[in-house]
Amino acid sequence: MASEHHHRLAALRAVLAQRGLDGFLIPRADEHLGEYVPASAERLAFITGFTGSAGLAIVLADRAAVWSDGRYTLQLEQQTDGALWERLHLTEQRPEEWLKACAAGRRIGYDPMLISADGLKRFAGAEMVPVERNPLDEIWADRPAPPMGQAVPHPDVYAGEGSAAKRARLAALLREAKQDAAILSDPASLAWLFNMRGSDVEFTPIALGYALLFVDGTARLFMAGEKLPAETRAHLGDGVELAERGALPASLQALAGKTVRYDPATQPVWFKTTLTAAGAIVSEGADPVALPRAMKNHVEQNGARAAHLRDGVAMARFLAWAAEALASGRETEMSAAARLLAERAGQALFRGESFPAISGAGEHGAIIHYRVTPESNRPIRPGELYLIDSGGQYLDGTTDITRTIWTGPGPAPAEVKAHVTRVLAGHIALAMLVFPEGVAGPHLDAFARQALWQAGLDYDHGTGHGVGAYLSVHEGPAGISRAAKPVPLQPGMILSDEPGFYLNGAYGIRLENLLLVKEADFPGARKKFLRFETLTLAPFDRALIDPALLEPAARDWLNAYHKRVYEELSPHLGPQPTVLDWLARATAPI
Amino acid sequence: MASEHHHRLAALRAVLAQRGLDGFLIPRADEHLGEYVPASAERLAFITGFTGSAGLAIVLADRAAVWSDGRYTLQLEQQTDGALWERLHLTEQRPEEWLKACAAGRRIGYDPMLISADGLKRFAGAEMVPVERNPLDEIWADRPAPPMGQAVPHPDVYAGEGSAAKRARLAALLREAKQDAAILSDPASLAWLFNMRGSDVEFTPIALGYALLFVDGTARLFMAGEKLPAETRAHLGDGVELAERGALPASLQALAGKTVRYDPATQPVWFKTTLTAAGAIVSEGADPVALPRAMKNHVEQNGARAAHLRDGVAMARFLAWAAEALASGRETEMSAAARLLAERAGQALFRGESFPAISGAGEHGAIIHYRVTPESNRPIRPGELYLIDSGGQYLDGTTDITRTIWTGPGPAPAEVKAHVTRVLAGHIALAMLVFPEGVAGPHLDAFARQALWQAGLDYDHGTGHGVGAYLSVHEGPAGISRAAKPVPLQPGMILSDEPGFYLNGAYGIRLENLLLVKEADFPGARKKFLRFETLTLAPFDRALIDPALLEPAARDWLNAYHKRVYEELSPHLGPQPTVLDWLARATAPI
Repeated sequence: MASEHHHRLAALRAVLAQRGLDGFLIPRADEHLGEYVPASAERLAFITGFTGSAGLAIVLADRAAVWSDGRYTLQLEQQTDGALWERLHLTEQRPEEWLKACAAGRRIGYDPMLISADGLKRFAGAEMVPVERNPLDEIWADRPAPPMGQAVPHPDVYAGEGSAAKRARLAALLREAKQDAAILSDPASLAWLFNMRGSDVEFTPIALGYALLFVDGTARLFMAGEKLPAETRAHLGDGVELAERGALPASLQALAGKTVRYDPATQPVWFKTTLTAAGAIVSEGADPVALPRAMKNHVEQNGARAAHLRDGVAMARFLAWAAEALASGRETEMSAAARLLAERAGQALFRGESFPAISGAGEHGAIIHYRVTPESNRPIRPGELYLIDSGGQYLDGTTDITRTIWTGPGPAPAEVKAHVTRVLAGHIALAMLVFPEGVAGPHLDAFARQALWQAGLDYDHGTGHGVGAYLSVHEGPAGISRAAKPVPLQPGMILSDEPGFYLNGAYGIRLENLLLVKEADFPGARKKFLRFETLTLAPFDRALIDPALLEPAARDWLNAYHKRVYEELSPHLGPQPTVLDWLARATAPI
Repeated sequence: MASEHHHRLAALRAVLAQRGLDGFLIPRADEHLGEYVPASAERLAFITGFTGSAGLAIVLADRAAVWSDGRYTLQLEQQTDGALWERLHLTEQRPEEWLKACAAGRRIGYDPMLISADGLKRFAGAEMVPVERNPLDEIWADRPAPPMGQAVPHPDVYAGEGSAAKRARLAALLREAKQDAAILSDPASLAWLFNMRGSDVEFTPIALGYALLFVDGTARLFMAGEKLPAETRAHLGDGVELAERGALPASLQALAGKTVRYDPATQPVWFKTTLTAAGAIVSEGADPVALPRAMKNHVEQNGARAAHLRDGVAMARFLAWAAEALASGRETEMSAAARLLAERAGQALFRGESFPAISGAGEHGAIIHYRVTPESNRPIRPGELYLIDSGGQYLDGTTDITRTIWTGPGPAPAEVKAHVTRVLAGHIALAMLVFPEGVAGPHLDAFARQALWQAGLDYDHGTGHGVGAYLSVHEGPAGISRAAKPVPLQPGMILSDEPGFYLNGAYGIRLENLLLVKEADFPGARKKFLRFETLTLAPFDRALIDPALLEPAARDWLNAYHKRVYEELSPHLGPQPTVLDWLARATAPI
């Protein structure tokens, strides 16, 4: 392997020299800047060997470096050759600083399809040179073909609003902003706007492509024809003109003199430079789909409730099984995750996992983005914590749930219970909030932490992310995190509530439900108020809760939630009395 | 008056025509962009007649408009002539939109000393032309002379750190940022850096001037020589070169080739354009004094505690008096405010009010920035709420406190008590918080509102502002508000905690203490945690608190706070048993 990567690096350097470049930037990104990258775009893995989900490499003539974050420190060391690559930490040794120190005045190439305008700004101190054809593709002989998953209609019975109506809504926004057209490069935006779903990447049902939305409500969809069966073409209708990906440059050229909306945060910088060169006026603004997509309509909301009910049934069967099985010591992280997947697979409308399940026992639970592999897999042992963070893609909704359970058989130590109860108190404090319109996630994040903070504890991740409707499990634009943009929460948004606590080398705790933002009804109130409806239906492990550490209001919330979980799930648990009996015990008042 | 303003407007238009300008921008600002404006800079009042503290006018050849905000709608109508001026609302009819609609393509002059670079950006859509001499000054025959208050030394016994040491600290920051010098235009920054205080404007003990701080730790202070007595000159020492205001342009010219820090948010844009024209490199960054000034040292913290103790004695005497006097119906908003001022004036080191007291009975309490005048003054009546928001400038610290009291003699209505108790619950929730380093005011603001939000109620102002050390009662850079910049809270910062509730035409409630940010002690914690110490010492009116509406933890906080108030104040109340008896009753547990 090392030798193979040695040859690849040498080949890349030869191409760079030939093109008059002193270096090249290789982000871990595809041409849509999405979370999941198809094999054809795994250029970072091809050149470095590193397969983690966050990273970046810079190759110069005489040195090369690869970056990732704290999650991947070990993996980075294992997968890359230290003789070829400096292995660095993204925030501790910033790539832009490294570039400034190592390559001042040198010409560094980049692929403008693989970085946003905002992302490129980070390297403003260097002389960054866009390339037309990625030099890696030139040396990547056996590069996989781009995925050609079929794009299928997403029926109105799930989408709740036809594509023409959605396009008309967005066209009105463009009209108001005096824009003639908008770029769409996020396949999830295409999926929402055209009511179709695909299978080009793992975990998110999207079909890779681009689109132009015009101010008259029509659109041009750039997608390989072979991905679009007749049924989908018919579903798209007359208002959507189809074109191959190759037609995109000419279509942008044709926008000369027009004002075109471009999102500098999420769209490849290639669109901006191509439009500018074509004589179009670039009007920077958020992807116009992002906010409407986040605000689920009533059909999507009901779909989410239905999906969460079935997901809750799968979780109840799994947790009932786990309550017995995990104390045996015969199950492993992989076998438990497989068991949960099997339960989900038995549910109607299930289409797959919404992300790779995080199944971590004991010390593995403390690894926030742990992904079990055959090498890391270990038995789940009696008398420890087991954390399972997982979710499903259903035709009517996307789920994401984390539970932390005590494997038993004996009682959990008081300190563990105290930590879990503080995490739960934070989860409940956020779930109980009422707030006026205009309040955003960064203003609420601290509520989920206060019970931990009071004890000098904290967790090093955000509290919540947006979740799509049979779309990405990580969806913008709103998030519950101090680092998130202050996008006001609005009715119909679905966000996770997932505080945690991690003791390195010992155990991890995370408790996650999805919350739906709804209007709160205060007759006579002078402004509109909002509150959360909890969508997720599964008990929190009572063996890990110390009732004395919960405020009365939080205890009331928990008991009411558990009562609701029992009432909603119990009619659907089928003929197994063991699961129903377990659920009754698991949801008894504390 | 109308005719006088008619003449002034005509005279201004004549000057504008003569100078080839189509219009002129007149912000309510002085040459330091400060909160309190000397009479010599009240140009907005001179030309329009409007004397409010927030406003702006634009004069074109054929029309003119003056803006203010909702606080001043009525005053704007009363003080300005509708035949001359369109009277508009700052956020509802934005000046930049008005300009776009009425003056597209026209040349609008502005005085670059009266607007910041960020403030000017707002008008980027118009052709804005800087003027060298303000045309208003040309027509303002009897313009008051600039204030010539004496700048006196602020001794180390209050400042806690010598000027040379402060300058050395800041010089290290400049060195790290590779800056040769920094502009200082905020007189409060001069006051802090040079350990001196002045008397050029009301309520804030500052001496107007400018300074250049150099990377070697020396400085040049631009201030009228007659403001600097020999004692102050000696106090400033060798490291501070004195210069007249008129020497400023030449001093900036001399910075050609140097990198100079300029704050686009708080400093006049004139500095930026003058430096750029001189060939200096403008490096944008916050006023380097702002953050160190906000983080009070231990001497300043002890000064604040001592000032608050004396202020608490004055408040206790006042509140004890009010408990009897206000039920009589013979006192007025003005007489009560005067009584409180007299109590403060009897305290050691008192130098004056820190802002104009807001003394509002009944419906006047609902006017958030109410300022009682002889015309608005009204009796304080039995059986109503009375709100008093006031503060003192003491040599050792600045205070700011709001209490809302029930005039009696009968009990307060349950609804009023419920509103007050929710405000108090919010005040306490914020005061009790513990949080790690990195958390900023916008992340905490919602804690002070949650008890109100749960009932569909809110208040339309921020929760807290920074407070200086014998300096401005409104001090940046940190604030507890969703609209504030997310400046992380740090030990030594003093911030107000002042939630409220306002029922227009009926009553207003606000409960305000000042909080000092301190380190929280958690042995073994993996990060530094912070908490608040309440500085203000005065009872909250028990007649307005419904104990059933407070969580147990909040009740405990209140009882502990009242106990502390009694213990700290009681030894200093002097020989009057009535005040001591009142304090004992007012601080009894609920």
